[in-house]
Amino acid sequence: MKHDRILLEHGSGGLLSNELVTETFLPHLKNPCLDRLEDSAVFNLNGKRYCFTTDSYVVNPIFFPGGDIGSLAVHGTINDLAVAGGRPLFLSAAFILEEGFPMNDLERIVKSLGRAAADAGVFIATGDTKVVPRGAADGMFINTAGIGEIRYPAPLAVGSIRPGDAILVSGFIGDHGAAILASREELTLSTALKSDSAPLNGLVESLLEASPRVHAMRDATRGGLGGILAEIAARSGFEMTMEEKDIPLRDEVRGICEIMGIEAIFLANEGKLVLFCPEEDAPQVLKAMKSHPLGKDGAVIGRVLEHGPGRLVLNNAFGGSREIDLPTGELVPRIC
Amino acid sequence: MKHDRILLEHGSGGLLSNELVTETFLPHLKNPCLDRLEDSAVFNLNGKRYCFTTDSYVVNPIFFPGGDIGSLAVHGTINDLAVAGGRPLFLSAAFILEEGFPMNDLERIVKSLGRAAADAGVFIATGDTKVVPRGAADGMFINTAGIGEIRYPAPLAVGSIRPGDAILVSGFIGDHGAAILASREELTLSTALKSDSAPLNGLVESLLEASPRVHAMRDATRGGLGGILAEIAARSGFEMTMEEKDIPLRDEVRGICEIMGIEAIFLANEGKLVLFCPEEDAPQVLKAMKSHPLGKDGAVIGRVLEHGPGRLVLNNAFGGSREIDLPTGELVPRIC
Repeated sequence: MKHDRILLEHGSGGLLSNELVTETFLPHLKNPCLDRLEDSAVFNLNGKRYCFTTDSYVVNPIFFPGGDIGSLAVHGTINDLAVAGGRPLFLSAAFILEEGFPMNDLERIVKSLGRAAADAGVFIATGDTKVVPRGAADGMFINTAGIGEIRYPAPLAVGSIRPGDAILVSGFIGDHGAAILASREELTLSTALKSDSAPLNGLVESLLEASPRVHAMRDATRGGLGGILAEIAARSGFEMTMEEKDIPLRDEVRGICEIMGIEAIFLANEGKLVLFCPEEDAPQVLKAMKSHPLGKDGAVIGRVLEHGPGRLVLNNAFGGSREIDLPTGELVPRIC
Repeated sequence: MKHDRILLEHGSGGLLSNELVTETFLPHLKNPCLDRLEDSAVFNLNGKRYCFTTDSYVVNPIFFPGGDIGSLAVHGTINDLAVAGGRPLFLSAAFILEEGFPMNDLERIVKSLGRAAADAGVFIATGDTKVVPRGAADGMFINTAGIGEIRYPAPLAVGSIRPGDAILVSGFIGDHGAAILASREELTLSTALKSDSAPLNGLVESLLEASPRVHAMRDATRGGLGGILAEIAARSGFEMTMEEKDIPLRDEVRGICEIMGIEAIFLANEGKLVLFCPEEDAPQVLKAMKSHPLGKDGAVIGRVLEHGPGRLVLNNAFGGSREIDLPTGELVPRIC
């Protein structure tokens, strides 16, 4: 059944997002780059491979513990390039501002965006600003697109995943989603919790140096670890398992999830990657991960099975297991 | 005096837009690409020159005579690449949708965007969709970023403009702005008027073939012909003159301007370029322009003087003249 209007869920990174892409966008935009459905397009320019990606940021609130919409817009796009094996080179930054937006807040955001780019070693090469009348947008939206140079020889893509692969995650999951939730809701919890928003390009470079056989990486943003892996499992055609006890999860995030009745594996991350590599390489990749500040809490959390339909199964600590589907509904609108 | 809140005028392409860029954005994002302040960044990748640009589209209404926000988002970004001497290769497309947006309208827009890209020979290589709750955005915004390959050896930039250059425009001005205005206001005029939204990459290629000495090009979007030329004059440090009688202007646009009390030279175009070349090359460039469907109404409209401060002077048919400043105020919010 096709919906006749856009629902919040179409932007969730879950089932309806997928449907929108495959049923509404792809049929009219079909081409070899887009059809891969990875976070970045990959193409040759003058004999070398480059990647190219775009994301709009509509996060609410624009300032949150651990970051703001400016740093997030830099980290998010850098991460999409990094997980394609790209060294980020240039970003664009396009602002849509609501009339009446405070100039001081704009300056803070631009400064934060500039610092995040400089810290990650990328240039903001080009930009744009549009202003819409009061009420036509909520405060500020930012789009960043980015270009990266691919230096890793193998294709990092869902199609490269093989049976027997280990699945690693680079640290505690759900921090970004929980921090945004906590900054919106009137929770009585202490909120030492911060977004994990961070640029993953340095971590990725050290992981690719550690193993020349990494098969695929993804940053686990909208849809969370569970949503990303369920999507990858479905597309790969392999059954994948996760061990609940091995998934790094902070007590504070667990607490917020229990109070709100949501699952941490579906909460967005903005500085965590999921990685697939041959099981025999997993120890050296994990070691490289743990020796990087942004991967020190990394873990092997699952594996790709030899057989079975394309689906994701979560095994819990008590011997039970259940299938994890692409999330439906929208847990946290404007999460990024 | 610095404003403490964003005004509509900050998005006009005029004086306050310039101020926002130079006072709020550049200080925090400073780098050699951005500091050129051209519509596209230009850089080397693997020994070849490429250009990179971004624009968000917030036009209202999203369907208008002569196009829609989808085709506009493709044409606008292609044109920014083309006037940098770039052959457009890849575009990104990022949608921000308001909850409740009609799916049929989205399909029409995506189809139009896809067709515009295919017609211009570019790939939509990567994309993104965000959905915000009702009231947090007005319908739909689109961002496109683009990458082009520069094949013209000389730098096409304000810094290349020389005294004595002829100034050409590729056809009737103000059509886009007037068409959007007419589609909003309750005008009793007949509205055969259509936006001039079109991809200029083909025209640009034939112009660059006609003269190896074209110095600079710009597409005359926000701020119109007058705004773009006033900005270029100020930045170049040269006095420039325009002859009012030589500026191609449709009677319908003149009529709308008279009714609304606005100047056609400040109305946005989405398929018109301004070009600077040595006066002796102007005849062959104009001939090439007129032999292309998108330049058939082109004309030489002015020149760059030998001396004088960086300013733009408009000479009228009766021997009078006046200085044209960067426009202030915002004629038509959400024009593109």
